[in-house]
Amino acid sequence: MGRVTDRRGVLRIDLDAAADGDGATRRRDSLSVEEPLEIRVGPPGPGRRRPLAVTMRTPGDDLDLAIGFLLTEGIVRSADDVHTAQLCAGAETPNTYNVADVVLAPGVPEPATDASRNFYTTSSCGVCGKASIDAVRTRSRFAVADNPLAVPAAVLAGLPERLRAAQRGFDRTGGLHAAGLFTTGGELVVLREDVGRHNAVDKVVGWAVRERQLPLAGHLLLVSGRASFELTQKAWMAGVPLLAAVSAPSTLAADLADEAGLTLVGFLRGRTMNVYTHPHRVTV
Amino acid sequence: MGRVTDRRGVLRIDLDAAADGDGATRRRDSLSVEEPLEIRVGPPGPGRRRPLAVTMRTPGDDLDLAIGFLLTEGIVRSADDVHTAQLCAGAETPNTYNVADVVLAPGVPEPATDASRNFYTTSSCGVCGKASIDAVRTRSRFAVADNPLAVPAAVLAGLPERLRAAQRGFDRTGGLHAAGLFTTGGELVVLREDVGRHNAVDKVVGWAVRERQLPLAGHLLLVSGRASFELTQKAWMAGVPLLAAVSAPSTLAADLADEAGLTLVGFLRGRTMNVYTHPHRVTV
Repeated sequence: MGRVTDRRGVLRIDLDAAADGDGATRRRDSLSVEEPLEIRVGPPGPGRRRPLAVTMRTPGDDLDLAIGFLLTEGIVRSADDVHTAQLCAGAETPNTYNVADVVLAPGVPEPATDASRNFYTTSSCGVCGKASIDAVRTRSRFAVADNPLAVPAAVLAGLPERLRAAQRGFDRTGGLHAAGLFTTGGELVVLREDVGRHNAVDKVVGWAVRERQLPLAGHLLLVSGRASFELTQKAWMAGVPLLAAVSAPSTLAADLADEAGLTLVGFLRGRTMNVYTHPHRVTV
Repeated sequence: MGRVTDRRGVLRIDLDAAADGDGATRRRDSLSVEEPLEIRVGPPGPGRRRPLAVTMRTPGDDLDLAIGFLLTEGIVRSADDVHTAQLCAGAETPNTYNVADVVLAPGVPEPATDASRNFYTTSSCGVCGKASIDAVRTRSRFAVADNPLAVPAAVLAGLPERLRAAQRGFDRTGGLHAAGLFTTGGELVVLREDVGRHNAVDKVVGWAVRERQLPLAGHLLLVSGRASFELTQKAWMAGVPLLAAVSAPSTLAADLADEAGLTLVGFLRGRTMNVYTHPHRVTV
């Protein structure tokens, strides 16, 4: 439980060394740990909690992941909506603590867990196209369009290096996504790593829920990979006014950010960046 | 429909140019298109098709994506199990063709669409940990453990460049995953690009289903990013004996490949690679 990396045997092949007759060597390498987490939700009392979602994640900060997921899906709105959250055993032996059991506070509506509302860890929407974007907009509690946050481009340019320097798991495995919450001065507030980029963001958001920091109106969120619709949606649900990605955004990410009034920065690399929406928050 | 990239306005900031007073320029950039695809499944006859999954994907080869998804989820076993598959309109106007409607052949069991079997595009398992790996093993029709495929390491080393050279979408956007099916001689058989790496693999597998090429016993599959549990599972479901990734694998990917008898190659870059499982298929 909680192990970010684990070691496996590997045959390392180097074709240039192979010419010298020493091209294949056995060694042990660190890999990013990936395990399923089942998130169960239910009302207080003796009622049974029902499985809501399964996500393949890197163990650690699992309750933050579960609570962040529930927040970004619009099921809980604050820490007050969570009665208890605990890790418990599934049917496995030995106990791998791959089940997060969340009891909602009295009066919080239970999410539908039938086919009419499937949860998908990469999309989270059960309807199509424009309709899903509208559904998200009505669900987000936090308006970010009028948020006055301003960040110098020079500060933004320095963030990927700070995120990367703070990524312990990546150094060992070369294979972990990261999400980092920063102040407008460029100070790293919280960093989370995961094999799933959406999980890394949910872990950051779950931390913020637990710390009663929502909405994250004075912060910006940096993700190590691409900016998808889903990550943009999660940023909006947490009230973040600026989402920056090291790599490319998708069309739907840009469209959603545009509608939400959220500043979307992509290709944040070296001394350059692309601002796709609401560029007034980035000062040059 | 079918557009891989689309253009959006962007503010390009270059801090080095900013010193000369010309650091922010407006232009239009190509972005990877991301749109939801709802996959509906039902029996032949007048019965209603029910939503099974929604995946955020890059439009194009959508029927291959739907059929590949159904194959890698164990719902259909071959083209014979699919009566008809067509794109149809959702509730949207204009029609964006974001619904794939699949009618199963008579006698093919309908998948459960209740909460007991949720589908997740990043995990696809409704149970936890070891249990899910066992479930996959029993569901895979194709044994790959005894597959005699052999590939020279020198051929493997050349594949990422071939994949990259054939990626049309990536060149324009810098943000599309790719999956390529290759012969053991290094010939590219089919390439698919998508914002979701699992979708890219499902599109390749769906092509193979339609072309009646399953099991893909004489081929190897290369993915542009990391190797997750899910991608390894999909490779196994399609009968592919060797999965290669440009980046890192996860522990669960390596564990599943080990159990399946599938060769897993990671960090395939330049003249080097790591072989995590069953290295006998890679000849030096």
